[in-house]
Amino acid sequence: MDVLGNIDEVQQHVKRVRMEGRSVGFVPTMGYLHEGHLKLIETARRENDVVILSIFVNPLQFGAGEDLDTYPRDEERDRKLAEEYGVDVLFFPTTEMMYPEPMSIRMSVTKRTDVLCGKSRPGHFDGVAAVLTKLFNIVMPDRAYFGMKDAQQVAVVDALINDFNFDIKLVPVATVREEDGLAKSSRNVHLSARERDEAPAIQESLQAGRQMVMAGEKNPVRIIQSVTKFLESRTHGRIDYIELLSYPELTSVDVIDRPVILAAAVFYEKARLIDNVVFDTDGKITTG
Amino acid sequence: MDVLGNIDEVQQHVKRVRMEGRSVGFVPTMGYLHEGHLKLIETARRENDVVILSIFVNPLQFGAGEDLDTYPRDEERDRKLAEEYGVDVLFFPTTEMMYPEPMSIRMSVTKRTDVLCGKSRPGHFDGVAAVLTKLFNIVMPDRAYFGMKDAQQVAVVDALINDFNFDIKLVPVATVREEDGLAKSSRNVHLSARERDEAPAIQESLQAGRQMVMAGEKNPVRIIQSVTKFLESRTHGRIDYIELLSYPELTSVDVIDRPVILAAAVFYEKARLIDNVVFDTDGKITTG
Repeated sequence: MDVLGNIDEVQQHVKRVRMEGRSVGFVPTMGYLHEGHLKLIETARRENDVVILSIFVNPLQFGAGEDLDTYPRDEERDRKLAEEYGVDVLFFPTTEMMYPEPMSIRMSVTKRTDVLCGKSRPGHFDGVAAVLTKLFNIVMPDRAYFGMKDAQQVAVVDALINDFNFDIKLVPVATVREEDGLAKSSRNVHLSARERDEAPAIQESLQAGRQMVMAGEKNPVRIIQSVTKFLESRTHGRIDYIELLSYPELTSVDVIDRPVILAAAVFYEKARLIDNVVFDTDGKITTG
Repeated sequence: MDVLGNIDEVQQHVKRVRMEGRSVGFVPTMGYLHEGHLKLIETARRENDVVILSIFVNPLQFGAGEDLDTYPRDEERDRKLAEEYGVDVLFFPTTEMMYPEPMSIRMSVTKRTDVLCGKSRPGHFDGVAAVLTKLFNIVMPDRAYFGMKDAQQVAVVDALINDFNFDIKLVPVATVREEDGLAKSSRNVHLSARERDEAPAIQESLQAGRQMVMAGEKNPVRIIQSVTKFLESRTHGRIDYIELLSYPELTSVDVIDRPVILAAAVFYEKARLIDNVVFDTDGKITTG
């Protein structure tokens, strides 16, 4: 595995790879790799000749009062995992390299952001769009891999690629789950034993909503009511939101006549968990 | 010459070219080609294996009340000129192809724009940055060619490439001039005989300012005063601005201790003419 810290080096490396006709799969991360990341790497490994992993904690996507300074880091472990999972190039830039001076051009994501988790993180996806534009231009991949756990991020990347004609295939990868269906998350360790017992209800409630669609229900309001009731009866966690929106546009729908996302966020004592399911008008899972 | 209207076709074509190890030079235009464009094409032709010319009148960079609808077009002539000057690929997309739906992500150029011509064209360079991001991702050139006549545009493209790590070399090309030094412009035909006689004074006045720097003057205020006086004595045109700014940052300077642009815009009866000169602390011309 090559560990490259220099932007020019990566661009030169990728140009050689592409001139050899070899395909490049890209997994952008903020490090502190967990099973979700490893599944992205595994998927990229299967589908490409060369796999490039980037680790960069992007200050631009953290708001005031967010946890930029305390964001967990473990370079040594990340490096070993990357090697073990067959990454060819690990790109590990410094902040100074990525942002040598304040940017002159700002990106503003004006759609897909004022819903779900985006509501409570103003500017977050602007920073995501900017750093991904940079990373896409540095790594120049054929395919880029993102986890469906953060479905809103996938929707924003979809907009970025389409709006600006990046010649990159977006590959959404299904959420990795515990045996009982709970979405894997580094935050799950903060759950009490009772909360951990209850938390699988989040995905169960979303699947119950999907079942309603499979059974012919097309009314989002009734589905959300039913999911809310189900979830409230199964957990003491406080529901932050349960939303049903078109996917990937993330607009509200009066009737389910196109692919949709059904998503939830739940506050526990020391963790806020999110999960979602994306399905078409028949309730068939379409993405991830 | 291949005439391609389809974004995918261009991307596939360029990928083949690059896999063959051949270099790509890109000349983005809004068509109605004049000698300035032809010099860009000639320069690209000399420096690259493959030359791609795009012709697209980008609605995003026209403000309300600007001349989008009446912008001159002559596809047949442009096509012949492109062929004659050795263009390999002419990319001629429709507006529907470039903007199939309203964009979700906006670019805002927050520096280098509130000076020179940018002052009177709010939002113009936002549209330029967005369409160039798209075109760069479609054409994936090694080098991109822009005329120094619009030095502010060159400065914005420089910011775009640096901010977002495009692996593209920006090549500024010197302004094409009449024998008497007047910058060539499709607007020169709107000058009266007397205005045409006077108009070379614009470049002469800027060169006089540069001579002052060569003679040791480092004070921008005195240079602008002198250039203004010179120009007012030589033409009846109304001066819109004479500015001296750092280049390419386009910030005001108290003393000439870095490369600068000295630029002017003059209103005549039926045309507004612009011109500039870029030089270093010794008055040596540096760009274009």
